[in-house]
Amino acid sequence: MDAPAVYQIALDVMGGDNAPTAILEGARAALEAHPGLFLHLVGDEARLRPLMGTMGFKGEIATRCAIVHAASVVEMDDKATCILKEKKDSSIRVAAKLVRDGRADGVVSMGHTGAAMVASKMVMGTLSGVDRPCLATILPNMLGRPTVLLDVGANIDCRPEQIAQFALMGSIYAEEVLGIRTPRVGILSVGEEEGKGSVTTKEAAQALRDMDLNFTGNAEGRDLWNGKFDVIACDGFVGNALLKSAEALAEGLIQGLKAVLTETIFTKLAALMARPGLKRFAKKLDYEEYGGAPLLGVKGISIIGHGRSNSRAVHSAIRAALVFCEHRVNDHIQEALGRQLSQAGTQESS
Amino acid sequence: MDAPAVYQIALDVMGGDNAPTAILEGARAALEAHPGLFLHLVGDEARLRPLMGTMGFKGEIATRCAIVHAASVVEMDDKATCILKEKKDSSIRVAAKLVRDGRADGVVSMGHTGAAMVASKMVMGTLSGVDRPCLATILPNMLGRPTVLLDVGANIDCRPEQIAQFALMGSIYAEEVLGIRTPRVGILSVGEEEGKGSVTTKEAAQALRDMDLNFTGNAEGRDLWNGKFDVIACDGFVGNALLKSAEALAEGLIQGLKAVLTETIFTKLAALMARPGLKRFAKKLDYEEYGGAPLLGVKGISIIGHGRSNSRAVHSAIRAALVFCEHRVNDHIQEALGRQLSQAGTQESS
Repeated sequence: MDAPAVYQIALDVMGGDNAPTAILEGARAALEAHPGLFLHLVGDEARLRPLMGTMGFKGEIATRCAIVHAASVVEMDDKATCILKEKKDSSIRVAAKLVRDGRADGVVSMGHTGAAMVASKMVMGTLSGVDRPCLATILPNMLGRPTVLLDVGANIDCRPEQIAQFALMGSIYAEEVLGIRTPRVGILSVGEEEGKGSVTTKEAAQALRDMDLNFTGNAEGRDLWNGKFDVIACDGFVGNALLKSAEALAEGLIQGLKAVLTETIFTKLAALMARPGLKRFAKKLDYEEYGGAPLLGVKGISIIGHGRSNSRAVHSAIRAALVFCEHRVNDHIQEALGRQLSQAGTQESS
Repeated sequence: MDAPAVYQIALDVMGGDNAPTAILEGARAALEAHPGLFLHLVGDEARLRPLMGTMGFKGEIATRCAIVHAASVVEMDDKATCILKEKKDSSIRVAAKLVRDGRADGVVSMGHTGAAMVASKMVMGTLSGVDRPCLATILPNMLGRPTVLLDVGANIDCRPEQIAQFALMGSIYAEEVLGIRTPRVGILSVGEEEGKGSVTTKEAAQALRDMDLNFTGNAEGRDLWNGKFDVIACDGFVGNALLKSAEALAEGLIQGLKAVLTETIFTKLAALMARPGLKRFAKKLDYEEYGGAPLLGVKGISIIGHGRSNSRAVHSAIRAALVFCEHRVNDHIQEALGRQLSQAGTQESS
């Protein structure tokens, strides 16, 4: 089991609506695709071992994974903070502990978002210089490219300089992990003009103008979808509301269309004829491609996927964690924050 | 021209992407449908008079409308406040003045939203007891029914008691104009549980619990679309971002699907076969049915429609203004605010 793996990821195999099967399927696909990956499969050993036997974890890939036992799971109706007391032995906390102890580079979970955030922040800790870690989501925009929206729920009441720091971390993530050169960074507001916005966003915009990134001004709600910005920063209250609204609206529209297209024999035929185009369109908007929301600003890597993730989304989330490692995103964040601080120092003393 | 009209509406005929033709078409349809309507058609007389001649404003309906001349129009790139100085003679300001002077019960405009809000607030004034007027939008939810979201942009930084007042005005609007009995009122937050939310929303929720309405707790972003609430209150920053995001997302999805369905002869045939179902689905989500966003809390009625409104949306907006009159929405708002104040007084003195 001690293969020369380059990057080690702790995978919470018990978290998510389709756990553990879909998580294990995603894990196997990731191991097959990435020869430099070692996975710690965190969960109920008695349940996982036989399952893995039937699921083809054998040969070379079996040498690059190991079960790490965790006795409990955070359920969807548990409080996020349960991992600090009642559920210290939960899979997400055990996984985060592997990172804290230097045994893994990052954690990936499709389970309880709040618990994964608490585990990452409290067990792994915050990067020095980072005021508050924040959760970034990658939205597929209408050009078929990713737009990073952050914070989407880690921080509810935010100060301007915190939102500016979210933007900085999001810019580094977009550049390093998504491969977007000099990402266009915006701050969410209620109008394009510089003077538009809340007291907080106007101050955050001012802070961003002084920062070493490609700040391109105020973004509006519509800009989440038109590809005008690569990164849009806001407080976690607004980001959370926007994300949940968009998920429900898109899902409602798609389900409504599906219902229409399965109504009669004619509409079924219609659906059949339009299928290639519909598939291509769906692929353009496919969130599974991006696989998970990174919690930026913690020591180590933390990728939190949607509870409904299928095996493909799990694989994508693991891949995102690997790219995060390879591109040393946290080192870049630390360097950028260091530059910020030394700049601020220079300005103060001048 | 002095027919015994029951309700008089000042219509800004010059505002909107399709002005003046679509506005006049909507006006004519409204006059035909509502015998108790008198319309002041506010705009450039030299332009409107010949147009109306060719558009069938004759016979009985010609006795229930009159042109009121306005020399200028607020353009989309004008500042909202231009109506206070440079464009005192703009159609929206002239229309609002008719309400202030008691010559009309309300104003309807598809023009510059900001200018319409400023004209309504500054020229018509605020109802006594109302802290801040707010803009409500009516979202078609997945059950095919309306959900009222407010404020969607009139107030950016809000205090808790202001958001609570938005909720109260929205509840009265939903009951009186949309015909929803005891509307279920929620406050937008980041989780269903009572403790979730920002400092402001938690205080607003507390204020709502003490108010005489059907407060049903925290709403999440997804609840804009699932029909779980009839009224959802938030500050104008969040509401504006949510509305603009949803408009762009829905439009992007629909345009993407349209592109797919017109790609080849097969997909065109498919679209043809699915058309009745698609039409029914589109109707369910049709914003034109609701026609405009009421600015609640001003003296008189102010309905602000989308710039892109077609004649049907104009007609719907005029109809909404009429129902607003008939149901004496402003009287109900005043009464409710009065009760609020006297309750607060009783609580303080007890």
